[in-house]
Amino acid sequence: MRPPIDFYFDFSSPYSYISSEWIGAVAARHGRTVRWHAILLGAANQVTGLVPPIQVPLKRDYLVRDVMRSAAFAGVPIRMPDPFPIATQNAARVFWWLHDADPQRAIAWARAGLRAYFTRHVNLADPTALKALAAEAGLEADAAEAAWNDPVWKARLKAATDAAIAVGVFGAPFIVVDGEPFWGNDRQGQIESWLANGPPRDLV
Amino acid sequence: MRPPIDFYFDFSSPYSYISSEWIGAVAARHGRTVRWHAILLGAANQVTGLVPPIQVPLKRDYLVRDVMRSAAFAGVPIRMPDPFPIATQNAARVFWWLHDADPQRAIAWARAGLRAYFTRHVNLADPTALKALAAEAGLEADAAEAAWNDPVWKARLKAATDAAIAVGVFGAPFIVVDGEPFWGNDRQGQIESWLANGPPRDLV
Repeated sequence: MRPPIDFYFDFSSPYSYISSEWIGAVAARHGRTVRWHAILLGAANQVTGLVPPIQVPLKRDYLVRDVMRSAAFAGVPIRMPDPFPIATQNAARVFWWLHDADPQRAIAWARAGLRAYFTRHVNLADPTALKALAAEAGLEADAAEAAWNDPVWKARLKAATDAAIAVGVFGAPFIVVDGEPFWGNDRQGQIESWLANGPPRDLV
Repeated sequence: MRPPIDFYFDFSSPYSYISSEWIGAVAARHGRTVRWHAILLGAANQVTGLVPPIQVPLKRDYLVRDVMRSAAFAGVPIRMPDPFPIATQNAARVFWWLHDADPQRAIAWARAGLRAYFTRHVNLADPTALKALAAEAGLEADAAEAAWNDPVWKARLKAATDAAIAVGVFGAPFIVVDGEPFWGNDRQGQIESWLANGPPRDLV
């Protein structure tokens, strides 16, 4: 069994959403699994001092257009949400709460949360909306709420974000294949080629 | 005849270099020509307040790796230059000097300059090296030097950069197809598809 692919995402990142729709299939085509990592890009940015491109006013119009276009090219449904971006720590804590019992349930939650925010404008930052989404996703909603208020899962998310920063993650999605880092939804072609054939010829 | 594609580049931009190697062929496959625009990304950044991603220390290691990898995937030879970035106004003024007599000669100069900097580390910011490159490219080197010192071509480059900013260019390469803007070397696939089929289905 070849080692898993690491997929770092933030629930409020549109390019994370688009790539979340293909990363599993791409990995499976090459006999790989995916280790998903919910992180807080905002917390990472506080450490790194970076601002996500889509939050730079001058780039925003272009990038919203690029998000819509990239989703359409990928065949992924999307409606650019408002408000955007949103605080995603509660959704991410639920991810880690599920993850440490069963990573597959965490992945299902991640996909449900990303789809809800980016296709139906479910505001994951709103506790009432998030509880309703948890129930819809088959979770026990009160237990989910208890988890996102629990210092254990707060610490777990912080540790996951710190670990991501430590391995060089500075944006989302960030995908690592056998130690090779790929930033962005737009590296799908390179990732596919790398999985199939390894590094391109002439890469030093 | 369908309208030309606009290709905005800076002589010091590695992703501009990579895309400069495919833009002509992509356009030709779809019955298009390319209008090349040498701009000063640094001057644009002074207006916009943006910093190119590759000049952000935390991203630099990743982006240099991505440049090398993207060039290898595209089959484009590259050696990451040092010093990097460099001042490119003289090379760009020569571009406009040639352009206003014969755009094809300007394109040939652009390709020669990008290749020289990114494969042989010819420092385009050094007047002696630039004159030698001009001679190598079949230009009259003294006339090229006179052009880059001429207020006429200084103003021409400034006007070209201002015009680029006015249409929303904030990075390089920046490629506009029938009014649709594409930023970055990594939009080749979308550009090809757009040229062949127009907008993707479901793009609103």
